[in-house]
Amino acid sequence: MNPAPTPEQRLAELGLVLPPLPAPGGNYVPARQAGSLLFLSGVISSGENGILTGTLGADRSIEEGRDAARRCALSQLAIIRQTLGSLDRVEQIVSVNGYVNAVAGFPDAPNVINGASDLLVEVFGEAGRHVRAAIGVSALPRQAMVELQMVVAVR
Amino acid sequence: MNPAPTPEQRLAELGLVLPPLPAPGGNYVPARQAGSLLFLSGVISSGENGILTGTLGADRSIEEGRDAARRCALSQLAIIRQTLGSLDRVEQIVSVNGYVNAVAGFPDAPNVINGASDLLVEVFGEAGRHVRAAIGVSALPRQAMVELQMVVAVR
Amino acid sequence: MNPAPTPEQRLAELGLVLPPLPAPGGNYVPARQAGSLLFLSGVISSGENGILTGTLGADRSIEEGRDAARRCALSQLAIIRQTLGSLDRVEQIVSVNGYVNAVAGFPDAPNVINGASDLLVEVFGEAGRHVRAAIGVSALPRQAMVELQMVVAVR
Repeated sequence: MNPAPTPEQRLAELGLVLPPLPAPGGNYVPARQAGSLLFLSGVISSGENGILTGTLGADRSIEEGRDAARRCALSQLAIIRQTLGSLDRVEQIVSVNGYVNAVAGFPDAPNVINGASDLLVEVFGEAGRHVRAAIGVSALPRQAMVELQMVVAVR
Repeated sequence: MNPAPTPEQRLAELGLVLPPLPAPGGNYVPARQAGSLLFLSGVISSGENGILTGTLGADRSIEEGRDAARRCALSQLAIIRQTLGSLDRVEQIVSVNGYVNAVAGFPDAPNVINGASDLLVEVFGEAGRHVRAAIGVSALPRQAMVELQMVVAVR
Repeated sequence: MNPAPTPEQRLAELGLVLPPLPAPGGNYVPARQAGSLLFLSGVISSGENGILTGTLGADRSIEEGRDAARRCALSQLAIIRQTLGSLDRVEQIVSVNGYVNAVAGFPDAPNVINGASDLLVEVFGEAGRHVRAAIGVSALPRQAMVELQMVVAVR
């Protein structure tokens, strides 16, 4: 029996290519390690043509929101690889905070943020299963649809 | 002189029964330990008949909000006991983030989240005294009134 | 060549005097240490005459928001000094969550929160460079303009 694939192998199997590192949107760093915890800045949703903007419950669908959240997670993986040298140094995805730009009363932030959570579990398996808070907010930087903040345990 | 009661003893003295574990609302786990820190997912307010919904400053009073926050804290205690085996393994409630579904400009999130904080201090005493952020947001999962996220230090 | 100034020396060079400790707005503590991490409660913006209130995108400018964020950071430094005895015991500013009271769709929370981040880097230099999330929300405690929550690594 073959051993389980590593996260880097799994990423290749899934045919996923990590996006370029997001440009920092202010006076902060993308990642900071304290002991064995790696704290990651909030990353906003972006695609090949720039920021993915819009408001859930108004001009964006759940499916678009899920895609935006998945792209946030891929950006975070790019930052983790850049910081640690390899995704294989991740021991555990610990915590994810997902903020969804949404109209008042929007009930489906969890469904949107599953776009990120599903990707993390696809790539890391059991080590990708994390705690989470999903929150609908009225304003994200540069009118982004989704912002994703993470804490990761490092080997 | 008797020793101070343990959290489990204190819970019994207060006549508190922990609610059933909340069903996860997405692809995440309720708790994840990293070193001596136990990270807990955001838990939304629920009662015997399901999610406690509504908006502070519109159709819900401060008192209803405080009760919702207290119930979030009780759900978190159920998750902590399930994860650690006993509340007595908690060394310290470290951090609480309380999100209140509220109208724009609602000023009383701290008063609402005190419903959770008061409960934690009743049960854990000095070890229940935590840092906190209370935030009013425009949309919580399933239109819940309150969401509560915690970090706990474990013995 | 002189050694780099310590954070306390740097604060003096900058002519900065820390404000009085903010009064807690609920049943929580300003700071709680777990291992080498010091967690800090959310602090709301205040000045000599009380809470700095208002809404970005409505009745407050970016410049007023930046000043409010800077004042939040100074309040946090007052709490850190009170808790640790000296700012020189800070090893690293790890993480900052900045919440901006803003109209729906307000895109400039990062610019506002830079008021806090810039101050932290001025005082701590490289050790002040942190990860961050900046979020626009519809309601902060006591109608404050900005709330700032931090995690700090301690020597």
